[in-house]
Amino acid sequence: MRQAGRSLPEYRELRGQGSLLDAVRDPAIAIEATCQPVRRYGVDAAILFSDIMVPLAATGFDVEIEPGKGPIVSNPIRTSSDLGRLRPFDPADAPYLTETVRGVVAELGVPLIGFAGAPFTLASYLVEGGPSRDHVRTKALMHTDEKTWFALCDYLAETTVTALRSQIEAGASAIQLFDSWSGTLSPPDYEHFALPSTKRIFEEIASFGVPRIIFGVGTGELLELMATSGAEVLGVDWRVPLDRAAGRVGPQIALQGNLDPALCVAGYEPAATAARLVLAAGKKAAAHIFNLGHGVLPETDPEVLRGLVELVHATSVDQRPGAR
Amino acid sequence: MRQAGRSLPEYRELRGQGSLLDAVRDPAIAIEATCQPVRRYGVDAAILFSDIMVPLAATGFDVEIEPGKGPIVSNPIRTSSDLGRLRPFDPADAPYLTETVRGVVAELGVPLIGFAGAPFTLASYLVEGGPSRDHVRTKALMHTDEKTWFALCDYLAETTVTALRSQIEAGASAIQLFDSWSGTLSPPDYEHFALPSTKRIFEEIASFGVPRIIFGVGTGELLELMATSGAEVLGVDWRVPLDRAAGRVGPQIALQGNLDPALCVAGYEPAATAARLVLAAGKKAAAHIFNLGHGVLPETDPEVLRGLVELVHATSVDQRPGAR
Repeated sequence: MRQAGRSLPEYRELRGQGSLLDAVRDPAIAIEATCQPVRRYGVDAAILFSDIMVPLAATGFDVEIEPGKGPIVSNPIRTSSDLGRLRPFDPADAPYLTETVRGVVAELGVPLIGFAGAPFTLASYLVEGGPSRDHVRTKALMHTDEKTWFALCDYLAETTVTALRSQIEAGASAIQLFDSWSGTLSPPDYEHFALPSTKRIFEEIASFGVPRIIFGVGTGELLELMATSGAEVLGVDWRVPLDRAAGRVGPQIALQGNLDPALCVAGYEPAATAARLVLAAGKKAAAHIFNLGHGVLPETDPEVLRGLVELVHATSVDQRPGAR
Repeated sequence: MRQAGRSLPEYRELRGQGSLLDAVRDPAIAIEATCQPVRRYGVDAAILFSDIMVPLAATGFDVEIEPGKGPIVSNPIRTSSDLGRLRPFDPADAPYLTETVRGVVAELGVPLIGFAGAPFTLASYLVEGGPSRDHVRTKALMHTDEKTWFALCDYLAETTVTALRSQIEAGASAIQLFDSWSGTLSPPDYEHFALPSTKRIFEEIASFGVPRIIFGVGTGELLELMATSGAEVLGVDWRVPLDRAAGRVGPQIALQGNLDPALCVAGYEPAATAARLVLAAGKKAAAHIFNLGHGVLPETDPEVLRGLVELVHATSVDQRPGAR
């Protein structure tokens, strides 16, 4: 459960008033923030405490993560002349990232999922200068200056490959690519402008043999295309029932998801009722990893999440090696 | 094209610095704002210059429309005890609404589309107190206190029926129901919590015999259900290709849409290329009303929209009575 820590009092105590990026840059904090939800909830995997903007911030972009708002980039990319500012990401720019991965792997008995951002979503932050409702500048750039757009995507793909490789080499057992905003694209635009660099990323890390997961919000119409990206697992938000998603992606792709995180705020009963529907629909998929359909909301009661983990463990077959 | 006026210099001059709700309350301004895009673009219908929150503001809710943000409600509905504050909407609360409709109908030679908000979307503003990313309070209310939720929906359905009736009686030739945020609901939640009051609205205005349109953003997974609402026309956002939408809703429902408004900001060529795809896909629908897939963005160049209207008129069959 991505950002599960946000719901925990021990997380709020650990983080204090510091910025998110400062916390990510301190392995002691980042290791603890990664491990806390695993200890509290007994989930079957951990996801790295980090942010998709970390590699970009490490190469010199002026990025801040504003609470409740998202990444703000004060030196955005708008034209081809801005491309000169792009500097390739080197793992040595962010040694804390691999240090955190190693620390978590040493401490936890469950697999760690590393992650990075997909080029379209990273580009949207760089071009818009922050979160956007309409992604107007990003779409204008891709439709009026393909050369600059694809050069930016090449750079971002390279950055993400480097970030994922270093996490895998440090011990991550799986990786997830967040293309959070790809759902704002029509299928033809996604196929032409976003999918190629995503495919390239998955190809370039294929030789590691770790499971590759891709996820975006509002991607119901893109699932068929995302299924061709090279990922073994497709994360689905709560809008698409998993049996329907399974019909779209075919029998080769596992699905991850997809309980509406808002229902976990509503309380255990509504969350459990919806979780049972998710588990039933997930049986139609080649394989199903139960998860929320998006990140945990900060106002979630930890007891609801703990109850859900119990419910899922009680009603599903655990296929980890050596498990019951 | 909803909110087409926002892109026009004559609209900005007309509106000046006043608030949106004040402009709606002044028929001279509202009539002119409704007519401006029809004169400039030569579109085949006008849509009323108003806002879905107008009837609620008229019954005493403290609503302001903040530019670039949306409706802010400073006295939100949170519990059953708040229901006591709901006062039925009477057309006499908003005489400017029908006066504007009459004035537009007298002035324009094209049909006028009236509109109102669907209960789920109106409720989300009342419960959250404004626009929301996660609709957590709204979903919590529906899942933990069905009685209050459905009482609120009944009230809002009644308000919307009254608002639509008065617009039709004043001369509107068609009506559109905006359920803008319904796409944040999973299909089972939409079916149980939002669809019934929407059906009731369409039933209660059926006897007028005017075409009924329903629209929401990100509703790809809800199209089958929305097709059972009683509407003759389903508006689709730019995420769902119209041929795919036609397959989901069957041969009885006309489709409206669905060019990505961001492409109109990118420029005429990208917009025209995408518009041709929309026109081709729309041929698979029982009938197709060309439109954008959401409101016009304020930064759109009016010349792009004028060019698009010409393109659509040149490449599609105009089926208005007496047309070529």
